[in-house]
Amino acid sequence: MTTANTPPPATAGTSHDGAPLGVAMIGYAFMGKAHSNGWRNVASYFDVPAFEQKVLVGRGAAAVSEAAAKYGWKETATDWRTVLERDDIHIVDICAPGWMHAEIAIAALEAGKHVLLEKPLANTLAEAEEITAAARAARAKGVQSMVGFNYRRVPALALARELINEGRIGNVRQVRAAYLQDWLADASAPMTWRLRKESAGSGALGDIASHAIDQVLFLLGDQVTEVSGRTHTFVNRRPGAEGLEDVTVDDAAWATLTLASGAIASVEASRVATGRANSLQLEVYGDKGAIRLDLENLNELNFLDATAPAREQGFRRILVTEPDHPYMGAWWPQGHIIGWEHTFTHQIRDFLLAIDGGTQPSPSFEDGLEVQRILAAVEESAAAKSALIQLAAAPTEGA
Amino acid sequence: MTTANTPPPATAGTSHDGAPLGVAMIGYAFMGKAHSNGWRNVASYFDVPAFEQKVLVGRGAAAVSEAAAKYGWKETATDWRTVLERDDIHIVDICAPGWMHAEIAIAALEAGKHVLLEKPLANTLAEAEEITAAARAARAKGVQSMVGFNYRRVPALALARELINEGRIGNVRQVRAAYLQDWLADASAPMTWRLRKESAGSGALGDIASHAIDQVLFLLGDQVTEVSGRTHTFVNRRPGAEGLEDVTVDDAAWATLTLASGAIASVEASRVATGRANSLQLEVYGDKGAIRLDLENLNELNFLDATAPAREQGFRRILVTEPDHPYMGAWWPQGHIIGWEHTFTHQIRDFLLAIDGGTQPSPSFEDGLEVQRILAAVEESAAAKSALIQLAAAPTEGA
Amino acid sequence: MTTANTPPPATAGTSHDGAPLGVAMIGYAFMGKAHSNGWRNVASYFDVPAFEQKVLVGRGAAAVSEAAAKYGWKETATDWRTVLERDDIHIVDICAPGWMHAEIAIAALEAGKHVLLEKPLANTLAEAEEITAAARAARAKGVQSMVGFNYRRVPALALARELINEGRIGNVRQVRAAYLQDWLADASAPMTWRLRKESAGSGALGDIASHAIDQVLFLLGDQVTEVSGRTHTFVNRRPGAEGLEDVTVDDAAWATLTLASGAIASVEASRVATGRANSLQLEVYGDKGAIRLDLENLNELNFLDATAPAREQGFRRILVTEPDHPYMGAWWPQGHIIGWEHTFTHQIRDFLLAIDGGTQPSPSFEDGLEVQRILAAVEESAAAKSALIQLAAAPTEGA
Amino acid sequence: MTTANTPPPATAGTSHDGAPLGVAMIGYAFMGKAHSNGWRNVASYFDVPAFEQKVLVGRGAAAVSEAAAKYGWKETATDWRTVLERDDIHIVDICAPGWMHAEIAIAALEAGKHVLLEKPLANTLAEAEEITAAARAARAKGVQSMVGFNYRRVPALALARELINEGRIGNVRQVRAAYLQDWLADASAPMTWRLRKESAGSGALGDIASHAIDQVLFLLGDQVTEVSGRTHTFVNRRPGAEGLEDVTVDDAAWATLTLASGAIASVEASRVATGRANSLQLEVYGDKGAIRLDLENLNELNFLDATAPAREQGFRRILVTEPDHPYMGAWWPQGHIIGWEHTFTHQIRDFLLAIDGGTQPSPSFEDGLEVQRILAAVEESAAAKSALIQLAAAPTEGA
Repeated sequence: MTTANTPPPATAGTSHDGAPLGVAMIGYAFMGKAHSNGWRNVASYFDVPAFEQKVLVGRGAAAVSEAAAKYGWKETATDWRTVLERDDIHIVDICAPGWMHAEIAIAALEAGKHVLLEKPLANTLAEAEEITAAARAARAKGVQSMVGFNYRRVPALALARELINEGRIGNVRQVRAAYLQDWLADASAPMTWRLRKESAGSGALGDIASHAIDQVLFLLGDQVTEVSGRTHTFVNRRPGAEGLEDVTVDDAAWATLTLASGAIASVEASRVATGRANSLQLEVYGDKGAIRLDLENLNELNFLDATAPAREQGFRRILVTEPDHPYMGAWWPQGHIIGWEHTFTHQIRDFLLAIDGGTQPSPSFEDGLEVQRILAAVEESAAAKSALIQLAAAPTEGA
Repeated sequence: MTTANTPPPATAGTSHDGAPLGVAMIGYAFMGKAHSNGWRNVASYFDVPAFEQKVLVGRGAAAVSEAAAKYGWKETATDWRTVLERDDIHIVDICAPGWMHAEIAIAALEAGKHVLLEKPLANTLAEAEEITAAARAARAKGVQSMVGFNYRRVPALALARELINEGRIGNVRQVRAAYLQDWLADASAPMTWRLRKESAGSGALGDIASHAIDQVLFLLGDQVTEVSGRTHTFVNRRPGAEGLEDVTVDDAAWATLTLASGAIASVEASRVATGRANSLQLEVYGDKGAIRLDLENLNELNFLDATAPAREQGFRRILVTEPDHPYMGAWWPQGHIIGWEHTFTHQIRDFLLAIDGGTQPSPSFEDGLEVQRILAAVEESAAAKSALIQLAAAPTEGA
Repeated sequence: MTTANTPPPATAGTSHDGAPLGVAMIGYAFMGKAHSNGWRNVASYFDVPAFEQKVLVGRGAAAVSEAAAKYGWKETATDWRTVLERDDIHIVDICAPGWMHAEIAIAALEAGKHVLLEKPLANTLAEAEEITAAARAARAKGVQSMVGFNYRRVPALALARELINEGRIGNVRQVRAAYLQDWLADASAPMTWRLRKESAGSGALGDIASHAIDQVLFLLGDQVTEVSGRTHTFVNRRPGAEGLEDVTVDDAAWATLTLASGAIASVEASRVATGRANSLQLEVYGDKGAIRLDLENLNELNFLDATAPAREQGFRRILVTEPDHPYMGAWWPQGHIIGWEHTFTHQIRDFLLAIDGGTQPSPSFEDGLEVQRILAAVEESAAAKSALIQLAAAPTEGA
Repeated sequence: MTTANTPPPATAGTSHDGAPLGVAMIGYAFMGKAHSNGWRNVASYFDVPAFEQKVLVGRGAAAVSEAAAKYGWKETATDWRTVLERDDIHIVDICAPGWMHAEIAIAALEAGKHVLLEKPLANTLAEAEEITAAARAARAKGVQSMVGFNYRRVPALALARELINEGRIGNVRQVRAAYLQDWLADASAPMTWRLRKESAGSGALGDIASHAIDQVLFLLGDQVTEVSGRTHTFVNRRPGAEGLEDVTVDDAAWATLTLASGAIASVEASRVATGRANSLQLEVYGDKGAIRLDLENLNELNFLDATAPAREQGFRRILVTEPDHPYMGAWWPQGHIIGWEHTFTHQIRDFLLAIDGGTQPSPSFEDGLEVQRILAAVEESAAAKSALIQLAAAPTEGA
């Protein structure tokens, strides 16, 4: 049930009635910094409804004040509940850790706030289902929600989706997705909350394989029906505050996914792939062509048209910086690349336009839930010696 | 007389006494948009003295208001002279066209404003010399100035300079610099002010070869003593408002430069290099190693260490996104690339820190003048059948 | 039990006593053409014992005569059994189809001929075991044998093994191996013997995943203990001589392999990966570095040394054409690349040197059997919904 | 006057009447080894007239015997003059040093032998003109000649020429050609005959810039009318047998060439480009597309079609290993790359077919002379402070 996110035309009229939308953001660590960048810059490049960066919310008053000053938020608060009570807040952008998602997101939706929720929906499948139910209920009242799979807004990936949708690579058969990082390659890298199951849910699987899996769904517009999975922890103990501590999440994960169309995708994620700083690699092979890309060169898409004469076939490196390319008309002249952070700028742009237009932003919480059901199936299969797990069909909606 | 711009440590304390620095920007086209991005974001990433984006100046009141709203400027003005009279303006960022540089920059310096001047210094060598003289006089009074060769702030180029300075490639012998674009490859691309000598000064030579030449000087910290040059216009007439008009600037330029150290650099620039959107390529060959990079992948530096055993030698692709890399500690975790626009963010950061520290920012107007003397020599040589032209030594200063 | 094949020094004296070794080759299709190239050229580049290309054996007298003339064989024969009776034949190079391997190879070994056997050992595991037993028996009598995993003789792969052996990438954790081809991407590509289980054994799995798996064993010098596998046929019927026929082998295969050291390798093979003509990709991630390469650029090895300062780390592209590189001292000056066919030239060189030295060539039939046991486990797992299969430890030998 | 060398169809019937052509080769160093490889293998892949590798000629009897045994020559001789008298020799392949070319080639042509002459034609322009005159006279009698610009037979370059000829990149405007090597980057690399003007003629200019210039002529099918040049020696003294000796040839050379069509080519050659083992890079920019390639990846051609929609444009990497690609039908299945040495195999194939067909092989001595006239003009310009030199039009022939 992957919803489409072909961006609305950049020139769309998007006037918003009445007062500017008031935005509150909860959390100001890595993701908060990246989301703030998007809020601070989106209106300089895109025609979006008026909004204000009203409140930044965090637990430490001093730290949140400093962050607000740096990142462009007018006010600060230390209690998110009081912020949800404010009438001048229309949007809540949740960048808090995963274990807090359910409580905050459900409260915000019930308070009638549009919610942008950083992925993953939650640390457990049960919570993710609750959140999704809350979003469905809120949607009926015109309250919108979106999960932050920001890579859907990489222009090269959006272009890849367009080309696939247009049939330029024909019927997709085989997909290879890998998300390789190396920040845990050093066995002496210290223990963090990201390496404990109770705080992080899982390791490379939830953190980065989730992006790779979302991309498979996004690019193919397809559903997963079957999963074989495997996970492994190469470094089982790492130095913590009080000596060596147990790492209780995976360092790497592998899966094969059967898609409803009959395509098969392999997924591999690792945080110990020495020399790969942040490499999300996607390869999609159809019967008429193929697509390849790597996030370390996120302004490039490799496309092969297999209907060309064999003599002339080859992967062409498209530098995705032309005005015709998704989102790029708003930026710089051709050949001037954009950075990773603008995946969030584009995400906020599309979120704002959807809210302004009264439509469901994409990806929805249902999309986010779908990814988590697949991640859960990977873990279930891993626990069952990699045996294939059937995925129940996603519950279909009225719409 | 290329001044160094090793960035001050990112953690430097830079508190500014008294009121925030007031900034006025003149011009809001392509460069104004890019500079505004830098002003809007620099304080979110770097520890810089307090400043305010006070006034945006442009001739059309309605258009400048719209631009100011988009780009984050508080006020607008249509007459730059009145802005120079304001006591609350301490910095003037000049993004107006080249033919206006001399008048504005000299007035601003004489009014005691620190000046950030987009390259080139001016459209003629005579004007560039006047501007430089004004900057020298102003500097004596503590008024600083900087010319906007933004590519010096590409982290990969800054890293290249560090490696070269540290002797990692030994004595440089041969440099290959090329700046290739293709926006004029289509013979039916329309006439613009950039294609008329009176408004643009020159074509690919001044617009982009200038960047390549500045990079040669920056990377080597050397001086040019001799120049052989050539220019050519492949498409002599282009459609204008009233039919075909004469193109009076070059489409492409070639030069070889002798450097004081004995190194030789070749420079090639083109706006008709079909398929090259914006490719500034630099190759530096020393007796102990080599450096290569391409602006289309501006987060990457290729470095070869020829002192390694032959069995292991090879250009290594360094993804310049580590905390240890110039400027990058302020941005995202490793592997998350930044965009072209942040060359301007870094430029503003270094400009602000220099002003705050009371030191001359780099590159100075003298550096900008040096580039223009070389460009003039290329034109002189081109007019003399490419015969080598000797460059007089740059006037040495007391400092 | 992967035996090492660090090539003997190129300058080794290798005089052979008495008459030149007489060589017979059986089969002259694709592999016969490639092996012949090796026999015809090996002595022009390497110092090997004297030998003669005596007899080419094939079923059709006319065709085999034509092939012998083209490929440099002195005589021809249509019955391989009579050739095995000749005293002047010391070496039999078997390039016949897989289903004939067992009969010919066992007969040749029993006749006291040294055997070079093209991979796979056989189409079934049972036959492979018989062949290996025969080789073991023959070895005791000084009769040598070698299975043709030619990619072990790609200089870049041999260099990769050297670097791994020297500990340059530390302890290996994760391996990614993929062999991607696209000659079956077109659904109208015709039926061939390679697509029938009875003649080919399996599809992408035996044909090309076998190479990838052999490389994992070769590069790591390790053993597989556990396998999860999957296979799939995307195009189930293809046009044959008499209309559409059933394809009874896989188009693609996936596996994860646990190695005795604790490393995990993923393997993916496909013949429908549109745009990938012949791409064997290997990535090996250790705790001190990493190795990457792609057979489409077989003269290049990418190596990352993670013990270098982070500021300077990057995959370096080593052009494996230096005299210090395995095998390359015999060829051309640096920078002059060699072609795919010389993997066979190197294979024959090492085979001849081992025979001359009275040592077991590598890879042995035991090595070939090990690959086939893994392939069988992949099929077994695939039939059991990808559940992990334990591999019995390879029978250890006295030596 | 660049003659075309589109290869005759690979399937052409080429039976030769009467006895096989007898071939003698003079010289057996680097080029002799490479040419021998071609003679030894050409008939295994291509349908060529029957020939025999009869005599290898060299001055030292022992060394030439050893070389003949290794490289497949039946007999040896130490005096080339006696070989020219033999009736059973029809072809002379001259791989001797450049200073011997004139004497041998003219004698061979006068003796009625077809001549394949390794480039350059000669060390001096005067000698090159004499040789060319001799070839013209011989041609009138049916005696053919060819100069060995082997890179014309790189399949990717032959494909590039085809695409350019077909108009796929439109009118060519700008060409960038560079041939970069690094074997002299080490200042302690020893003195050799290649570094003395009397034995080598020139340095990087004649040795490798010559290839780059020939490629410009070959790819464009055009003539040079004007030249500006520059040469430089970075390391002036190198260790010889008796201490430091003067290097009297260039280490690097630069030129711009005006072509009759109005295109402009830059050429740069270096033997001190650290990290570039053997990199011949060509870029051709037309008004409808572009071509790029690098000899270090000689099986790849990069082609950009600028008539495609901007959204889809990009350089496509064509792996030139398809049966449709020039020469490649004779080799291996798609994706299996060939090595540098087969440029000579292809050269011999085309040479033999032309002789068999009674036509002039390409490139002719006139083509070789044209390159030398350009090299001489580069030197003349370099001596005149890089001032442009006009090239007289090549003398047109009756044919």
